[in-house]
Amino acid sequence: MIGIAVVGYGYWGPNLVRNLADIASTKLVAVCDLQVDRLLQVQARYPGVRITDNFDDILADPAVDAVAIATPVASHYRLAMGALMAGKHVFVEKPMAASVEEAQRLVDEAARRGLVIAVDHTFMHTGAVRRMRQIVEESLGEVYYYDSVRVNLGLIQRDVNVLWDLAVHDLSIMDHVLRERPVAVSATGMSHIAGRPETIAYLTLMFPSRLIAHIHVNWLAPVKVRRTLIGGSSKMIVYDDLEPSEKIKVYDKGVVLSEAETGSELYQALVGYRTGDMWAPKIDVSEALATELREFADCIERGATPVSDGECGLRIVRILESATQSLSQRGRMIDLEDARKVA
Amino acid sequence: MIGIAVVGYGYWGPNLVRNLADIASTKLVAVCDLQVDRLLQVQARYPGVRITDNFDDILADPAVDAVAIATPVASHYRLAMGALMAGKHVFVEKPMAASVEEAQRLVDEAARRGLVIAVDHTFMHTGAVRRMRQIVEESLGEVYYYDSVRVNLGLIQRDVNVLWDLAVHDLSIMDHVLRERPVAVSATGMSHIAGRPETIAYLTLMFPSRLIAHIHVNWLAPVKVRRTLIGGSSKMIVYDDLEPSEKIKVYDKGVVLSEAETGSELYQALVGYRTGDMWAPKIDVSEALATELREFADCIERGATPVSDGECGLRIVRILESATQSLSQRGRMIDLEDARKVA
Amino acid sequence: MIGIAVVGYGYWGPNLVRNLADIASTKLVAVCDLQVDRLLQVQARYPGVRITDNFDDILADPAVDAVAIATPVASHYRLAMGALMAGKHVFVEKPMAASVEEAQRLVDEAARRGLVIAVDHTFMHTGAVRRMRQIVEESLGEVYYYDSVRVNLGLIQRDVNVLWDLAVHDLSIMDHVLRERPVAVSATGMSHIAGRPETIAYLTLMFPSRLIAHIHVNWLAPVKVRRTLIGGSSKMIVYDDLEPSEKIKVYDKGVVLSEAETGSELYQALVGYRTGDMWAPKIDVSEALATELREFADCIERGATPVSDGECGLRIVRILESATQSLSQRGRMIDLEDARKVA
Amino acid sequence: MIGIAVVGYGYWGPNLVRNLADIASTKLVAVCDLQVDRLLQVQARYPGVRITDNFDDILADPAVDAVAIATPVASHYRLAMGALMAGKHVFVEKPMAASVEEAQRLVDEAARRGLVIAVDHTFMHTGAVRRMRQIVEESLGEVYYYDSVRVNLGLIQRDVNVLWDLAVHDLSIMDHVLRERPVAVSATGMSHIAGRPETIAYLTLMFPSRLIAHIHVNWLAPVKVRRTLIGGSSKMIVYDDLEPSEKIKVYDKGVVLSEAETGSELYQALVGYRTGDMWAPKIDVSEALATELREFADCIERGATPVSDGECGLRIVRILESATQSLSQRGRMIDLEDARKVA
Repeated sequence: MIGIAVVGYGYWGPNLVRNLADIASTKLVAVCDLQVDRLLQVQARYPGVRITDNFDDILADPAVDAVAIATPVASHYRLAMGALMAGKHVFVEKPMAASVEEAQRLVDEAARRGLVIAVDHTFMHTGAVRRMRQIVEESLGEVYYYDSVRVNLGLIQRDVNVLWDLAVHDLSIMDHVLRERPVAVSATGMSHIAGRPETIAYLTLMFPSRLIAHIHVNWLAPVKVRRTLIGGSSKMIVYDDLEPSEKIKVYDKGVVLSEAETGSELYQALVGYRTGDMWAPKIDVSEALATELREFADCIERGATPVSDGECGLRIVRILESATQSLSQRGRMIDLEDARKVA
Repeated sequence: MIGIAVVGYGYWGPNLVRNLADIASTKLVAVCDLQVDRLLQVQARYPGVRITDNFDDILADPAVDAVAIATPVASHYRLAMGALMAGKHVFVEKPMAASVEEAQRLVDEAARRGLVIAVDHTFMHTGAVRRMRQIVEESLGEVYYYDSVRVNLGLIQRDVNVLWDLAVHDLSIMDHVLRERPVAVSATGMSHIAGRPETIAYLTLMFPSRLIAHIHVNWLAPVKVRRTLIGGSSKMIVYDDLEPSEKIKVYDKGVVLSEAETGSELYQALVGYRTGDMWAPKIDVSEALATELREFADCIERGATPVSDGECGLRIVRILESATQSLSQRGRMIDLEDARKVA
Repeated sequence: MIGIAVVGYGYWGPNLVRNLADIASTKLVAVCDLQVDRLLQVQARYPGVRITDNFDDILADPAVDAVAIATPVASHYRLAMGALMAGKHVFVEKPMAASVEEAQRLVDEAARRGLVIAVDHTFMHTGAVRRMRQIVEESLGEVYYYDSVRVNLGLIQRDVNVLWDLAVHDLSIMDHVLRERPVAVSATGMSHIAGRPETIAYLTLMFPSRLIAHIHVNWLAPVKVRRTLIGGSSKMIVYDDLEPSEKIKVYDKGVVLSEAETGSELYQALVGYRTGDMWAPKIDVSEALATELREFADCIERGATPVSDGECGLRIVRILESATQSLSQRGRMIDLEDARKVA
Repeated sequence: MIGIAVVGYGYWGPNLVRNLADIASTKLVAVCDLQVDRLLQVQARYPGVRITDNFDDILADPAVDAVAIATPVASHYRLAMGALMAGKHVFVEKPMAASVEEAQRLVDEAARRGLVIAVDHTFMHTGAVRRMRQIVEESLGEVYYYDSVRVNLGLIQRDVNVLWDLAVHDLSIMDHVLRERPVAVSATGMSHIAGRPETIAYLTLMFPSRLIAHIHVNWLAPVKVRRTLIGGSSKMIVYDDLEPSEKIKVYDKGVVLSEAETGSELYQALVGYRTGDMWAPKIDVSEALATELREFADCIERGATPVSDGECGLRIVRILESATQSLSQRGRMIDLEDARKVA
C-alpha cells in the first residue's frame, strides 16, 4: 500500500482525497493546505489523516511515499521538485508546470532518482477516450483531422489564458488517441477582460502527415459544447462528452476516389461519397480519477511508467508554451522542436 | 417590369428561373446554357421563354434589361463584364469573381455605366440573418466574437478550396450583421485529396476593436453542422440554421466586472457571471432568393443600391483571396488594406 | 405499361401525378378534379394528359387501366366502387374508407372482379419502416411494446378526428412491422374546438400476447414529434422520423432475469439490466410513393397482391372505427372481432 | 430549531440526512434503520447523531419533534401513524401510503392532533415546477392538456406497479401546476416480467372542463425521456427535465378561430394557426429537498400548512389507487369521488 499526501484542498483536492481514501492500494496519509478551515473539514471527514499547513512536514514524513499536488499551476514546479528531492513520487495536476523549462527539469529529476511522476490528465483515463484510442488504431484508416470545440461560460482566470485552462484537455486526449505528434502550432485569440489573458483562442496543429488538428476554446460562450470530430479515410468519430450515454459515435462515412477517363484529361480522379451505418459502442463509465490513481500506485510498486507520465506532461506544456508565443505574434506558425513519429 | 435572362441552368439556375417567373416585377425573358438537354427542360416548363446556347444572343436582345449569372466562378468575370458592356444590369452568383482584380473591375465598370450589380449572397436575405443584424445592433452591446462552424460531407471541388465554397456564406452573413470590417485575416488548412485544394480550413479575422471572428469549414465531416455563436457584452446569440423553427436563440448571459478591495491588492477587478432568460424570436420564413430578386428589380427601377452590391461582393472576395494566400503561408496574418469602420 | 388516371389534384394528388409521369411502368393518362384552375395547372405542366371535371369520363376511357384516388375520405367509397365496377384497378389514399362497412364492400368487390386494390399507406414503403420490419423479425426477440408519439400544431379537420388523420400512419406502420394483430382497442381524447372532432387522442391496443401498443396524437402541440419506441426482450428500437440521417437506432438494452435463493423465499427472480452498443443502420432513402406506385403497377401486371392491399386498409379502418367508438364511451375497451395471429 | 429523526437510510434517506444536517432551522437528532452497516456509516459521518435499529427509541425520544420516513411504501402507514400517535410531526416519502384508506387515516390523525404532515413530492419544490405554476396561471389562458412522458430503463419493483413509482411524480406536478382537480381516471398497461406488476402504463385523467391529462410511464425504455407538454389557448409549455439549462420553453403558439361566411354554410368557424416567439425563463436551481425541508420546519414553528400536505398526498394516492383498479379492468374509466374545482 502506497502512502500518499495530498497538497492543496481547494477545487480538485477533495476528489483526490476521496479516491485515495477508497482505493485499496493507496493509503491517504496526510493533507496539506494553507487554509485552516479546509484542514478542519478534512479532519472531520477523515479523522485518522494527518493535517498540516507546512509542506515541509509532508516532506519529512516517512509514511509519505508519494505526493499528490492540486495547487495553482504557478506552484507546481516548486512543490513537485521539493517532493522529488525528498525522494517522494509525484502525482501533479495538469498542466504539469508553467513552462517547458520547469517541466523538463521535473522529468530529468524524476529520471535521475528513479521516481515516478504522473500528470493528472484525467480525460486520458476515461472510458470514452480509451475506447477512441482503440477505434482510431483499428478502424479509422489514415487520420485526416482532429477537431475539438470546448466552450462555455467559464471561470475566467487571472494568470493563464484559456488555452492553459481548456485546450490542455484536448491536447491530452489527442496525445493519447493519435499515433502522430504535432510538429508546429499556430494560435489566434483575443482577451475581452481588460488586463486579463485571452478569453478565446483557436489553435491549429500541423503533423508530419496530412493530419491537421484544431482546438477551439472560449470562456465567453452562452452554451456549453464539448464536441470533437476525428475524421479518417475509413471511418469518422463524433465524440460528445455532454451526451449522457452515447458519447462516441462512429460513422461509416467517407470519400471514395475512383479513376475515370474523360474527354480532355485521361484518368481524372473522381470523388464520390460513401455512407453506411453509425455505431455507438458501449463505454466503460468507471471514474477516471480512480483508474488513474490505481495505475499511479501500481507503477510505483512495479517500477513501471504511467500512461500520462512526465514526458507526456512535458509534450503538452511545450505546445501550450509555443501556442501562447504564437498568440502574441498574430498566429505565426511555431515549430515544435522535438516532434517525431511515435515509434 | 424588368426583363431578365438567366445564364447557367445547372444546380442553382433553376431556382433563379422559378423565382423570376413568379415575381411580379420581373419578366423571365431568356435562358442560356451550353447543354441542349437543359434548355429543352426550360422550354417544356416555360414555353414562352427564349432558349439559347449563345451568350451573344442574350447580349443582343433588347428585351433583356438584366442578366442573372449562375455559372462556375471562373466564368463570372467574363460573363458579367460582357453583360455590363452591353448595358445590362447584373445579378451574379457568389463568390462574385475569382480574384480581387476581377471583382474590382466589375465594380468600376458598373459604376461608370450607372448599372446595378448585385451578388447573390442568399443568406443575407434570410429572415434569420436580417433578424440577427437587428438584434446585434439593438441588444448585444460590444460585440466580442463571431464564431461559425459550417461542416458536412460535401461536394469536394476541383478548382476552389473549401473557403470559396463554404466560408463565403459566413463572410456574407458577417458583412451584414456586424458593424465593423475586418482588418486582417489568417487561415490554416489541409487538403486530403491528392491534387485538390484544401478540404478543411480555419479562418481567423481581426478587427479594429477587440472583436475576433473565426470560421471553421470542412468538406469531410460525418455530421452536418451550421452553428454560429455571436458573443456580446450584454447578450449572446446562437444561430443554428439546421433548427427547423428556433434558428436564433438570444441568451441573456455574460460576464460582470466589479471592483473589489482585497488584502494585498487595492481595487482588483472581480469577474462574475450573469445568467438570465433565453429568447427565440419568430423568424420571417419567406424565401430569401425571392426577396433578393425583388430588391434587385426594385433597385434597377429606382436607381438604388442593393444590400449585397458589388462593393460587398468585392469585400468578400478580398478576404477569400487573402485567406487563400495565408493558407499557403502557414497561416501568416495578412492585412486587408481597405478595412475601415462602417460610417 | 399501366394507364392510370388521378382523381383529386389537391394536397396529395400532385405527388401522385409527378410520380406516375416519371415511372417507367406507368402512363399518366388523365387527371380529374372539380376545380378548373387545378386542371389548368395540370395541362400546363403535362400537356399530353387528358383533363376533366367529370369522373364518368375517367370510367369510360379505355386507356385508363387503374384509378388513383386522392380526394377527401368521405368520397373514397363512392369513387373507388365506381372504378371497380367499371373494371378499373384502384389505388386509394388512406384511410381506405369512412367505415368498416365501406372498406369491406370494396375488398369484396375487388376480389369478385379480380382487380387490384391498394391503399396508399406511404410510410409502409419507406426505407425506415421496411428496415424496422426486418430488425423486429431478426433481432428484437419477444416484442413487449410499440409506442408512438405523433404530435404537432396541425391542420384541424372538420369531419374526422385526429386518429383518422394522424394515428392512421402509426397503425399502418404497426401493421407492417409487427407479427401480431391487435385484439382490442381503447381510446381517450378531447376536442378543444367547439363543434369539431377530437384534437387530442390516446389509443391503446391489446394483443394476444403480452405486447401492448399505444399511439399518442395531438393537433395542438407546440413542437413536432414523430417518435416511436419498440421494445423487445433482446433489443429495443427508437425510430425518429424527424432525424435527417439516423432515423432508426437499435439499442442492445434490456432486462435480465436470474434466479436467486434468498432468506424467506426460495428461488426468487432477480431483475437486472443489460446495456450494450447502439447501432443506427443505413436507411434506403428512395421516395416511398414511387416504390409504392411501381409495386401497384407490377401487381396489376403479374396478378399479385400489394403490401398495403384492401385487407390491410380494412384492418386499419376497423381499428379507427372501434377507437372512435371507444372515444365516445370514455375509453371502454372494444374487442376487434377478427383479430388473429399472422399465419 | 426542530429536532428531526430520519427513519430509513437506504436510497433516499442519505439525502434527507445530509440536508437536515445542513439546514439552520433543523437539527438532525437520530437515524433509525434495520441494517447495522448503514447505521455505522451514519455514525462515521455524523458522530453526534443518535443511531438505533428500534423505531420505539425514536418515538420515546423527547428531542425528536418530527420524524422523516424514507422506507418502502408498505411501511409508511405503520411508521407515520406511530409517529403521529407519539405526538411527532411527520415528513413521509411519496407515495404517502399504500391505499386511500391508510392515507385518509393519517390525514385525520394529524388533524385531530394538530400535527404537521408533509409528503415528500420533491418535484413540487423545484424551481422549474414552481415557475410553471406561475406561467400557467398568468399566461396560458384556458388549459387544454397536460401530457407527460416519463420513461427509462428503470428499477423494476416487486410490489408496486410503474404508476406508483413514476406517475406519482407527474401527479404531484399536475397537482401543483393546474388549477383543476381530475374527476375520472383510466389506465391501461402491461407487465412483462412474470409475477411482477405492470412495467408500462398509460393513464388518462378527465377534468370538469375540456382539460385532459395523460401520463405515459415505462420501466423498459432504451432512452430516458422526461418531457411534459402543457397546452393552453394562449401559450404552450414544453418542460424537459433532462435539459441542463433551458428546462422550460414557453411557446407563443396556438389556434385562432374566426367566423367566415361561405357559400353553403353561414358563419362557419375557420381555424388558423398562430406562431410567435419562444421564451425560456431562467429557473431557480437551488436544491428542491432543502427548500422543502425548510418549509416543513417553518410550518411546524408557525402552525402553517405545507404545500404538499397530507391532503395533497391523499389526492395522489386516490388517483393511483383508482388507476390501478382501472388497469385491472381493461382501462375502465373510474370516477374520483371527491373531485372538485379548486376554490
